[in-house]
Amino acid sequence: MDFPHYFPIWNKLNSNQQNRLLGSLIPKKVKKGTIIHNGSADCTGLLLVKSGQLRAYILSDEGREITIYRLFDRDMCLFSASCMIRSIQFEVTIEAEKDTDLWIIPADIYQGITAESAPAANYTSELMATRFSDVMWLMEQIMWKSLDKRVAAFLLEEASIEGTDELKITHEIIANHLGSHREVITRMLRYFQNEGIVRLSRGTVIILEKAKLEQIQDA
Amino acid sequence: MDFPHYFPIWNKLNSNQQNRLLGSLIPKKVKKGTIIHNGSADCTGLLLVKSGQLRAYILSDEGREITIYRLFDRDMCLFSASCMIRSIQFEVTIEAEKDTDLWIIPADIYQGITAESAPAANYTSELMATRFSDVMWLMEQIMWKSLDKRVAAFLLEEASIEGTDELKITHEIIANHLGSHREVITRMLRYFQNEGIVRLSRGTVIILEKAKLEQIQDA
Repeated sequence: MDFPHYFPIWNKLNSNQQNRLLGSLIPKKVKKGTIIHNGSADCTGLLLVKSGQLRAYILSDEGREITIYRLFDRDMCLFSASCMIRSIQFEVTIEAEKDTDLWIIPADIYQGITAESAPAANYTSELMATRFSDVMWLMEQIMWKSLDKRVAAFLLEEASIEGTDELKITHEIIANHLGSHREVITRMLRYFQNEGIVRLSRGTVIILEKAKLEQIQDA
Repeated sequence: MDFPHYFPIWNKLNSNQQNRLLGSLIPKKVKKGTIIHNGSADCTGLLLVKSGQLRAYILSDEGREITIYRLFDRDMCLFSASCMIRSIQFEVTIEAEKDTDLWIIPADIYQGITAESAPAANYTSELMATRFSDVMWLMEQIMWKSLDKRVAAFLLEEASIEGTDELKITHEIIANHLGSHREVITRMLRYFQNEGIVRLSRGTVIILEKAKLEQIQDA
């Protein structure tokens, strides 16, 4: 069990708290595409990613999506345990973007520990502040940045996460990340293609001119 | 000094912590329009509103504004002490919307107390979760709701806060709340006026048909 190496404040907990955590952990392997937590469903618990990639998104009444943050190795997801914090009044859905190994920490166990441990409670605040910062960044993007900049920033982010300029991604998926429509994204990508910035083929976007994407992003 | 009646977790602090708080508090009266905290400025401290009204907003590079939340009597503002929480990576500006009486709690004092008190740390999490929920609500408004619904919702909110249907507010100010442009708001208000929903005069919006605004808001 290597959980202690992944849990950032392990050494700040007493042995009783450590044992309660270890005794309640649920290790889980999920396949790419699995919905791990559904906004309206029960309180799943906190998720600690061992390896893989998750995304958290919100859904409109009409089924449109927008990605609000992503979680990578060693990241922890708090909002899948929103029952734990009374003041959380919104719902996120968590989906595995890659095959993912994770631990589920039951919400009641974690809540019991934060109730008695200032370090655990402060760690929870820091976690929330990190996601809050992600969301504020996103809001600024949506409010002040036009879609060409957002698509350019998204392609650059994907290339950085995947470590390749040949992205296996559909226009539909890009639209879901950005809260846009497939048709709108297709139009933008074709514009980029006409400018020689990307090459499009079925299910693939190949970045040809990274520098130009960066120019658009920063313009 | 009636601070203890306004500070929600006063009774959960020990007397040493209570004394440190009382000994460091800065009571302040600010006039309507005062900028109390400026995103890029030093760490102002936490603000506890005794009476009055504040708004927190973000600014684009071009100076456009959008209100992210408002604070009323007994509300506490955390993000004016963002130096306290390392993971807060965004900047808000806090302005008095009405003459306001408040206390400033120095960030280092509050941080010292949360470091040793689980109730204080958990209270901080709850505060952050409340603002996070405000921002998520706003994001959903921006993403999925058209401007007519947002203007209708804003006018209804203002009428409810002010307790009157005769709102002293300029189109510029409405635009700043909603992250829009004055011209766009003027066009929308004129449309509402043509529909007999509001009457406009210099610096005033009078709501004539509240039920119709509610219909637009909920459509």
